[in-house]
Order: sequence, then C-alpha cells, then structure tokens
Amino acid sequence: MADLAAAEPWCVRQTGLSAEALETAALRQAESLFALANGHIGLRGNLDENDPQGMPGTYLNSLFEVRDLRYAEAGYGYPEQSETIVDAPNGKLIALSVNGEPFDVRTGALVAHERVLDLRAGTLRREVEWVSPAGAAVRIVSTRLVSFPHPSVAAIRYEVTVRDPGVRLRLDSDLLANEEQAAQRDDPRAATTLHRPLRPVGHSDDVLEHRTRRSGLAVAAAVAHRTAGTQAVTSGPDRIRCTITGEGALRVDKFLAYAWGEQASARRARQDRDAAVALGFDALAAEQRAYLDDFWAAADVELDGDPEVQQAVRFGLFHVLQAGAQAGPHPIAAKGLTGNGYDGHTLWDTETFVLPVLTYTHPACAGLALRWRHATLPAARERARELRLAGAAYPWRTISGSECSGYWPAGTAALHVNADIADAVLRYAAASGDDGFLREAGLEILVETARLWCKVAHRADDGRWHISGVTGPDEYTALMDDNAFTNLMARHNLRGAAAACERFPDRAHDLDVGAGELAAWREVADELHLPWSPAREVHEQAAGFTRLQEWDFAETKDDDYPLMMRFPYLDLYRKQVSKQADLVLAMALRSDAFTAAEKARNFAYYEARTVRDSSLSAPAQAVLAAETGHLELAHDYLAEAALLDLRAGGESSGDGLHIAACAGSWIALVMGFGGLRDNGGRLSFAPRLPEHLPRLCFRLRWRESSLRVTVTPAEATYEVSGPPVEITHHGEAVTVAGAPVTRSIPPLEVRAAPPSPRPPARRRDALEA
Amino acid sequence: MADLAAAEPWCVRQTGLSAEALETAALRQAESLFALANGHIGLRGNLDENDPQGMPGTYLNSLFEVRDLRYAEAGYGYPEQSETIVDAPNGKLIALSVNGEPFDVRTGALVAHERVLDLRAGTLRREVEWVSPAGAAVRIVSTRLVSFPHPSVAAIRYEVTVRDPGVRLRLDSDLLANEEQAAQRDDPRAATTLHRPLRPVGHSDDVLEHRTRRSGLAVAAAVAHRTAGTQAVTSGPDRIRCTITGEGALRVDKFLAYAWGEQASARRARQDRDAAVALGFDALAAEQRAYLDDFWAAADVELDGDPEVQQAVRFGLFHVLQAGAQAGPHPIAAKGLTGNGYDGHTLWDTETFVLPVLTYTHPACAGLALRWRHATLPAARERARELRLAGAAYPWRTISGSECSGYWPAGTAALHVNADIADAVLRYAAASGDDGFLREAGLEILVETARLWCKVAHRADDGRWHISGVTGPDEYTALMDDNAFTNLMARHNLRGAAAACERFPDRAHDLDVGAGELAAWREVADELHLPWSPAREVHEQAAGFTRLQEWDFAETKDDDYPLMMRFPYLDLYRKQVSKQADLVLAMALRSDAFTAAEKARNFAYYEARTVRDSSLSAPAQAVLAAETGHLELAHDYLAEAALLDLRAGGESSGDGLHIAACAGSWIALVMGFGGLRDNGGRLSFAPRLPEHLPRLCFRLRWRESSLRVTVTPAEATYEVSGPPVEITHHGEAVTVAGAPVTRSIPPLEVRAAPPSPRPPARRRDALEA
Repeated sequence: MADLAAAEPWCVRQTGLSAEALETAALRQAESLFALANGHIGLRGNLDENDPQGMPGTYLNSLFEVRDLRYAEAGYGYPEQSETIVDAPNGKLIALSVNGEPFDVRTGALVAHERVLDLRAGTLRREVEWVSPAGAAVRIVSTRLVSFPHPSVAAIRYEVTVRDPGVRLRLDSDLLANEEQAAQRDDPRAATTLHRPLRPVGHSDDVLEHRTRRSGLAVAAAVAHRTAGTQAVTSGPDRIRCTITGEGALRVDKFLAYAWGEQASARRARQDRDAAVALGFDALAAEQRAYLDDFWAAADVELDGDPEVQQAVRFGLFHVLQAGAQAGPHPIAAKGLTGNGYDGHTLWDTETFVLPVLTYTHPACAGLALRWRHATLPAARERARELRLAGAAYPWRTISGSECSGYWPAGTAALHVNADIADAVLRYAAASGDDGFLREAGLEILVETARLWCKVAHRADDGRWHISGVTGPDEYTALMDDNAFTNLMARHNLRGAAAACERFPDRAHDLDVGAGELAAWREVADELHLPWSPAREVHEQAAGFTRLQEWDFAETKDDDYPLMMRFPYLDLYRKQVSKQADLVLAMALRSDAFTAAEKARNFAYYEARTVRDSSLSAPAQAVLAAETGHLELAHDYLAEAALLDLRAGGESSGDGLHIAACAGSWIALVMGFGGLRDNGGRLSFAPRLPEHLPRLCFRLRWRESSLRVTVTPAEATYEVSGPPVEITHHGEAVTVAGAPVTRSIPPLEVRAAPPSPRPPARRRDALEA
Repeated sequence: MADLAAAEPWCVRQTGLSAEALETAALRQAESLFALANGHIGLRGNLDENDPQGMPGTYLNSLFEVRDLRYAEAGYGYPEQSETIVDAPNGKLIALSVNGEPFDVRTGALVAHERVLDLRAGTLRREVEWVSPAGAAVRIVSTRLVSFPHPSVAAIRYEVTVRDPGVRLRLDSDLLANEEQAAQRDDPRAATTLHRPLRPVGHSDDVLEHRTRRSGLAVAAAVAHRTAGTQAVTSGPDRIRCTITGEGALRVDKFLAYAWGEQASARRARQDRDAAVALGFDALAAEQRAYLDDFWAAADVELDGDPEVQQAVRFGLFHVLQAGAQAGPHPIAAKGLTGNGYDGHTLWDTETFVLPVLTYTHPACAGLALRWRHATLPAARERARELRLAGAAYPWRTISGSECSGYWPAGTAALHVNADIADAVLRYAAASGDDGFLREAGLEILVETARLWCKVAHRADDGRWHISGVTGPDEYTALMDDNAFTNLMARHNLRGAAAACERFPDRAHDLDVGAGELAAWREVADELHLPWSPAREVHEQAAGFTRLQEWDFAETKDDDYPLMMRFPYLDLYRKQVSKQADLVLAMALRSDAFTAAEKARNFAYYEARTVRDSSLSAPAQAVLAAETGHLELAHDYLAEAALLDLRAGGESSGDGLHIAACAGSWIALVMGFGGLRDNGGRLSFAPRLPEHLPRLCFRLRWRESSLRVTVTPAEATYEVSGPPVEITHHGEAVTVAGAPVTRSIPPLEVRAAPPSPRPPARRRDALEA
C-alpha cells in the first residue's frame, strides 16, 4: 500500500514511490495518512503537482452542500436531504517545469523521493531528487503546514535547486475551485460525488469567491506568494494561477487563507492571509511547533517494547488533534478533515471515542465540540417533535445538525447517540471543572436528552422500565428491546441530568424542570431493565439476544467479511453475531454496573460472537480484555486499532482516516493497560502491563492539574503537577500530591484468551518475528 | 365522490355528473369502479372522449417496465430494480363532434348522464343526452366490454342519435400509445410515473407495435371499426385514428385485440381481432353474459336485509373475477387491472384473500394463479440463495417474479408470503381435488418453501424451535421473534409439504426429499413456538409484543390516521399498535390452533390495539368477531370491507380497487357469518346470523360438487349437487347428499363488542336510518 518506512517515534516516513505506491488505492491511503488539518482546514496529502492523484481534497469544516435523499419506498420522518462535505478551492497545487518539461514522478528518473509527516513540527515535508527526461537534475523540497494557532491559514514552502547551471524553472501555482472528482465507489461508507458544487461569485488576482449552490454557504479563498522569482498572475472564476519563473534555483512561500460560512468576505480572507504573509513561513512553522510542544507535553503516551504501536499511538493522537483542534464550535467528523468518507458527517463515535481523549489531553477542544452540540439543540428539538418524541433527538449523522441518515433502523433508531453526547458532557464537565460550560450549555443538553429517555421508556407488566425497539452500537442487530448499552447510558444520562439540575437550580428552573420531573428521571434510571440470560449466565446485548440463532462461523469464509457486504440484514439481525463491541463497550463505559465475574463471563460470550467489521470494535475489546486479565489479547486489539490506518491500510482509509480508531488506540492503552475509569466523576486506575511491554507512560489533564502515570509490569507511579488529585489504584484510594506515589500492581493469573471467530493478529508474534 | 345511485342488486349505477363527480379524485375513483377486465386486459372506466379524466389506464397483465430502485443507503440484497405496470395503447378513445362542436360533458347542456356497470352482462353502459352549445341535441349510448371468453379482445359499441335533422356527426376513434400521465402522488402506495414507456417498432392502419424500453416486452394492438358511416384512417407510430362521419345517426362497433409478451406479433393481434369482428358485437355480448351466468350460478352470495352490502359483495366478486379470470398463468395484482396502484404488483393478499374466494367459486383461476407462482420458482430459488436462505424465497411484491420491494423490514423480512402461497396451494388442492396440479406444480412449491422454513427456524435453549427477526402481516410491527401468524403458517406449510411428499413419493424423490428431511420438517412444525403472555393470558402477536409500550390512543386524533403518514416507524414498531389483523388473521386461517376461550380473549386484546390502517384488516376481524359471538360487530366489519371502494371511496381507490378487500367481503360473509373453516382438508361450518339479517345464501365448489348453504338466524340448510360432501355443522358431522339437510343453530348469548380505539361504523345505525 502506501509503502511506509519502519516505525520512528515522532514521524511517519514514506521513502521512495514504488509502482505499488502509485496505484490509486495506495495514493488515496497516503493522501489520508499525510493529510494536514487544524480542525478548520484540512488538506489531503496530495502531491504538490497533483498528478498522479488518488482523490483531491481541501476541506473547510462545515462547508457542505445539500443533496436530496431518494428512497425506494418513502416513510414518515425520513430525512429528505443529506449533506456532503465540499471540496473547497485547492491551494496546494504547485506544478514545476524544468527546461519546459513538466515534473512528474512517473517520467524521467526519480532518484529519491521522501515524504515525512512530522508529528512535533506539524508539517508534511517532501524531498525529491529528479532528473528530467532531457537530463536536467533538480532537487525539490516542499514543506506544507496547516496552522494550529492561525485557524484560517495554510502555507507551503516550495524550493527547487538544480545541479547544472542554466536550467530554466517555472512554477504554476494554482488556487483551483471545482476540481474534477473521481466517480463514487460502490460502498455505503463512501461519499457522494458532487459535480461542480461551487458557484463562482467573484474573483480577482488574489481571491476566489464562491457559494455552494443549494446550501448557500459562502467561501472566499485568498492566496499570496513570496518569491524572488518573476511572478505573473492570471485569474478566472475558478482559478488563480501565479506563474513564477527563474533560473538555477527558486523558492516560493505560498500563503492561503480561507473565510467561509453563511457570510464570508474576501476582505476577511485577505486580512488573515496578509497577517500570515507578515509573519512569514518560518514564524508560522515556529508557532506550529510551539503549539505542538504544548500539546505533547500534556498528551504524549510512551510505550516501550512496541515501536510500531508507539508510533501509531502518537500518529493517532496527532490526527485526533488535527480533527478536533478548534477555535469555534464545529463538529468533529468521523474522518476528521482527511477525506470525504461518510460524506464528512459526524457520528456518535466522536462523543464516545474522540471526546474522551480530547477531554483528558486537550480539554478546551472537547468543550467546544460539545458547545457545537449545544448550538444544534434547536434542530434536535425539532427532530424530536417530528419523531413524536420529547426533548431533543440528536441526529445519527450530520454536518449542520440536521439528520442525514438514510436508513432509519441503523440511524434514527440508534437513540443511544443522545446518551453518548450526554456522557461526553458529564465526562468533560467532571474532568475539566468547566462550570461555565455546564451551566450555559451542558445542562440544557442533559435536560433535553433526559426528557427524550423519559418519553421513550415505559413501565411494563413486570414493574420495570424498558426501552423497546431501538438499535445499539452493534449494527448487525437492530430494533431490539432493552439494548443494554442504551439502557445503561440512558440511566447515566438521566442521573447526570438530575444532578446537574440540582447544582444549578436557577438554570433548571429556566428550563421548566420541576421536582416531579427530577424524581421521574431518577425512577426511570433506577428501574431501567438490564437483560440477563439465566440459561447462559450472561447479560444480553439486548433482550432475547442469547436466544437468537447462532451464526455459522464454520461456513463463513475469510472473504465473507465484512459480512454486511455478503449477507442481508435479514440474516445478520436474526442471529447472534455482532459487528462490533456493544455490551463490551457498555462494560467499558459503565464499568460499575457489572461485577468482575459478570465482566469475565460476558466478555468471553461476546468475544465468540463479535466479528469486528467496525473499526470501533477493537478499542473496547482491548479495554475489557485487559480488565478481565487477557493482557496479550488486549495488546493484540490495541495494535489492531492503532495500526488500522497506518499499517493495515484498508481501502476505507483512502477516503479518510478512522479518527475514532485513532482515538481508540489511546483508549486501548489508557483505559486498557492503564485501567482508567471515570465513573462518578473520580479517576480510578487499575494498570496492568503484559510482561513483554516494559513500560507505559501517559498523561492526563484533570481540572487544574496534570497527572502523569508510569506503569511497568510490577508497579505504577503517579505524579501530579498542580493541585492534589484523588484517585484509586486497583481499588485503593490514593491522594497524588507533591512527590510521585508508587504502588505495586497485584499479581494476575495468566489465562487463555476466550475464543473468537476472527482472532486478532497475535502482536507478540509480530514483535518476535 | 363518484356519486353513485342507491344500491341495486346487480348493477352499480351513476346517475348524472355533478360538479363534485367531475373533480379529479372522484373521476379517478369512478374510473376504478367502472373498470372492466378479464384477468388479461384491463380498461379503466374513463369517459369515451377521455376528457375530463382522472387517470388513463389500459393494462395488459404482466406488461411492465423496469426502473431502478434508489436507496439513500444501499445494503446487500436490496433489489436494484422494480417493475411498474405500463399503460398500454388505449383503444377506448372515441371523441364525438356535433356540427363541429366537440362533445364535452362540461359544455353545452348535459340533460342526462348515466353509467351502469352491469354485473351479469359484464358491460359498462353509458347513456347521455346532451345539447351542444349551438343547440344540437344528441343522445349517446356506449357499451363497453372486455371479453371473458376471448381473453385478448375488448369491444365498444358507440351509438349517436340526434333530435333534429341535418346534424353532422364526426367520431374520432383512436388507438393511442404513450398517453400523457399525471404526476405521481406523494404516497408510498402510489405508482411510479413512467414517461413514454413504449418504443414504437411498427405501425399500419390497423396495428400499433411497440416494445417497452428496458424490460423489452412487445405489444401489438389491433383495431377495427364496423359502421355504416364514412371511415378515414390516419396512422403514426403512436396513434391510429379512424374518423367516421355521418349525418343524423351513427353507430360504430369498435373491436380491439392485443398480443403481448417477450414475443408478440401483429399477426396474432389481427387474427384475434378478426375473429371478434366476425363474431360481431352482439355475439360477444351474448357470450359475455353466458360466461357470467355460469360464474354467478356457482359463486353468487345472497344477503337479505342489507341491500348496500348485497350489492357490494356482488361488486366485489365481480371484480375478483375480473382480476383473476385467466386463460394462462399470470399474477393477480393487488389492484387487479383497475389501476396502477402498488405499481401493478401482486402481494401476499392475493394468496391470502383472493385465492380462497376463487378456490371456492371459480377454482380453475386459482389453479392458474398458483401455476404462475410455480413458474416463478427459479427466481424465488435464486432469491433464496442471494439471501443466504434455502429452498425458495418468494418476492414480497412483483410482476415478473423478481423481488421489487424497496423497504426490506416490511418486504423481504415478511417471509410469511411463502407460507401464504403454500397455504393457497394446500387449500386449492384439497378443495379442487386437482391432483395433476399438486403433482406437477404444487408439490414443488410446498417442498421449496418448507426448505426455507427449515433453514430460517432454529432450536433455542428452551428446546423449542423459533423463527426470529421476521415481520408478520401487521406492518406497524417488524422484525420480531416468533410472529404467531408466521409460525403457524410455516407449521402448516411444513406439514403440508410432508404429507404431499408422502402422497407423491416419486416426485419427492425427484426433488431429493428423503425421509430425514421429512422428519425434520415435522419436528420443526411440531416444536415451533407460539408465544403466550401469562400476565395477560393471551397469545402474543410476536414474542414480547404484550410487553411493548401501549399506544396513546387518547392523544391520537382522527386525522392522525393512517398512522404511518404521521408517526415514524420507530414509534409504531416500538408500541402495541397493529395496522391490521395479525394474530386475529392467524386465528381465522389456523383456527384449530386455538381454543374458543383463547380466541375470545385474544380477539378482545387485539381489538383494543388494531387501527385498521390496512384494507386487509376488517375481513379477518369480521371473521373472528362472528366466531367469538359479536355478530353485530362482524356485520360492521363486513360492511367496512365491502363498502370500502364502492361507498367509502378513499383516495386510494382512485389508483385501483382493493381487490383483496373485494374478496374480503366474501370472506367476512362466508367465513364470518357462514363460519366456513377448511382445516385438515374438510369443510366445517358454524353459521350464525345477527337477528336483523334474515337470510344469507352462498355457494361453494368442492371437488366434483356444488354446495349451497342457506342461513337464517335459526337454522342452516345445506344442499349439494354432485357427489355427497362430508361437512360439520357447529361441530356435528353431517353428510350432505340428495335432499337438503337443515340443522338448527345453537343459541348464542349476546355479548357487548370488545372496545376498539377506532370502532367501525355501526351498520345497524345505517340500516335503521
């Protein structure tokens, strides 16, 4: 695939460009891996000269077009429109000519080609040595950044030197709107292809202005070049071209700034671009590194003994930051800003996987992402009314806040997204101590989602409360009663809402929450049923799940996966087969609802029935494998999550990285080997490392403090900077303050991993090979 | 709506054409009511001059076009194409000019206008007296028929006479292809609008030849006129126009013949037309009446005391015959050939409602409809393979035999269609004694559907067999476990298949059915679970149904119905609300699986939760209301089913009649008041009439015999022509042979009807008014 070099701690390096790496799928994957973003702007890692190319991509968070959703059979409440992220004007393009011959990695002689994604510098650097067909030798170095401190700005430094004198160089540096798009793949996870989505509304020699045709969003893109070469500019509605010529050597610093939204002015884009030009490329690069130094100081995870996973975890954290770094409330898409997969939509995985990581490593971003959810409450309230529910019903997938899911049994019916958002609110509020957020935004989310659950739940003949006919995380099971994950998360949502209302009674009053409503929430929470199979002595993923037909794994072939591409939902839904961790995820997130013995039995039961056709599965399985004492298996799942985009390189990385899996490797490490749980607003740890991993060190932000946890197979050391932090270590209450605190790790009997129909690759085999 | 005259026993009459009757919805309804068909050709009851018009419609059974099905989110096994019945070349058109002024019911003076659908003559007769704007008075009589004995032929006699001498008359008589269609209604039950579906492939002065563009089906339409007037013919690819002129009086007999299918020759169409011309209109009309005399002799139902229902039941039987009369294996569509609703598809209601009626009244048609199912077994086997099932999986909706359902939870998942077809096979074989059918066609259907059930069912921890995640008849509940209707019908299917294999061991051998497979079918049948609620002491429509949330009927307004247009499936599926009889239908069809006490309790329970948003509901409710002793309620439901199209005239009659409801009024009478059950291949009766209905008389065909049953509130008389018939009367075995046998009807304690959220209109109130 993308032909990456051996793992390095702080960068991802591609050396050479083999024929294999030039195939479209490999190009697409590399473009995703090497994408740069700052939560606002995303530039896929296309080659400067744009050819060969897998898929173009310049994304501006929430710049989307709407399209009609067509149904073979319509139904009430089906969304009529969806939203698709738009490919914004592309300013990455720099095409080089050498003595009139175009630079192309597929012609002449490519003597050297290297690309490095530098996780500390926050840049993509490319170094090329090339000899043109006519024999002119050049060296090219390009460095690209999307600025974290300057959210509207990206910049590229492009340098060419020659071996022999007298070589004429020409750069055609473009800002190009409405790029051609390849046709859509035949895969439900792929994006819709939009044809020329941007209507030109103005252009000059330095700014292109467009509006999306149907959603009516404006975008202005400004460009400037700083070079000692000779510049000539031409412009049209969809293209500004700056042609720079010189002899012997050329250096160009290209600055881009974007303004977009319902209103977007060329003036604003020019201002931001001018500010970037005034700073200059070197200063932008220095500020970028400083920003990342701060990030890594609070967020870094060190893992000794597995260099590939070490690299991958940092790569994952870097991409989580690139997806989630924010200066204003915006969604965080499932693919971040690295591709147009899932049409650029945000889904529940953001709150469930990405926000926990940001909450503990870069909490301000988590808060802003949740303020975006708060800003979309009007749409969620309207959707609840439309669905004949109460409170707010958040969309399953969206960019703007409107429901865009075209398949309701695995979209609208997955009401758990509301509790997932509430869970993220409660975690963020507890970890950050950001009372302003809770009071102004979080409380209202909690109240409206609690109202949803109260309306959805009902009391049955058994006197218990039940939630019928909803879909949990597992997309191979749908419309079941009492999905355990949903019920436990709803319980947390209801209790959290009640507690928050008691903390801010004036705000609760504003929202018409009375004592009766609080009592109702608590009654429903206390009496929500958790299905249990006495015959199998396990909790049921949903009521009746353990009585369904078993999947015939003996008859299932390797190329039958993912099953959804070879079996109808009719078959999948009727059987005991889970696409992804569902009850297992519930045991990770609502850990205190299960005893240790239940966790062990449940984990083994669902291991035998979970096929991991979702990238969201392995992290939760890693966490429970670790908790139930299967440390090698936990490592296997950790590696599967961490290496998914970087090494496994499935086709689905090509239209964007799996940001939740990027976050999932942190979760697998910190919740898995670190044993982090945060039930009840208190940090607890139960760290455990397999013998072959000598050391794990991770950092957490907790209110005003930074906590550093270092784990070896024998002991764990806790250090704090800032006010003391109360934690538990394997059940023992510990106050961490001042000097590091070290505690030993209780011994564990090594047990064989429970069988799985698709066991993950054994990580120790890979390490020992 | 269509402004019908008071009920008459043998015709449906419309007198006058009020402004209301000229509104589009009323025109559409009347066109459906006055449609003529013979199972092959269907002509909607458009006015001869075609203007004003609700919706054009000339249908040839199975002449369809394909169209792509679009999904907002695709999934494995979703059908990629659907089929839509095509509007074939229209030969009904006869436009009159009087002294150059076009006859139009909206201009001049419409002195008299009457249309009569004559159920014994099998004709639609129209009589008009009209004075043109310039004062020329004419009288028009047109008589239209679609010939039962000559399945490719239709004919029209059009006569004009004038009051004053010297009036010039001109008739433009057209055969017109690719008529303009109105735009589609925004209703999932409506048809897709096809634009110019027919590609011209040849035309002459008497034949138009076309092919459908994508399905590639051929159609040739031949026309001829016999008249004393002067004829002039012009023709083009889409139109043949015969202009006939005369003075003072004109009579034209217009003959139409169609040939269609994968191959269709103009020669064949001409031959059939020439044969019709040779017979002449009067002979065609006489043969039509003779055919219907035979039909009514075997099929008529007499009901004293409710003239409207009497008329409606005959109207329903007439339309069942028009939909199902056959000379070759073809499907019977849900709307017959009266409109393009449901895209002209056949659904499970044909086997469940229409075929029982035909089996007992016109059995040859039932046999041919089932031979059509047999002919589509290859497609059903292929579908089963695609769905990873076994045997055959019949489509939920189709014209050709390929699945056309675009919403799998209420389409593909409704596997009961397979058992419904098997049930129809078993009923037809038992009632007709047609062993040739069973041996050549029926057995293979039974075997392949039994194999489906064996694959779908599984044995769970409780040792019982279960069918999980399927959808029963009730479309407000989906993807449940152990739908009682499905399980009982599957049981019948499995046992029936086993018995048939034992009867024809050589055929079973040909189909690779061994002793082990037979034993497996019987084991599954014997152990298939029937869910029961101990708390409520009722059978559950599906496992867990009685534990679902109750529907809030107090908050449901009259205009909230049909609920599917105002509430999402998410809400409907999660709650105890039934669109239509489901368990109640199971109690009608699988009567011996329930005790009388269970039937009474179950009926009352589901009455309180059934909203009858489906026209298939009332007949089954009538049957169980009668059986459980609620005779007035049975009458109410009978009337609701019978009057649905004729008097209620909902918008959904406009795109075709509800043929299953037409059949349902027979079922309500004969299975309801007559108490007919046919479990185990033996006829049983438990007749009971409410006091206000003095007499019911119905006829049944049973093997070589005709049985006539006359019921009064006090007694029932059974008469047979042909060999003796063994029956039971209220549990007593009776042999009917020779002289009529009269038995008294046991007394019944009058009980109050169980409450319903939407009680039917009280029929006695209407009768007493």
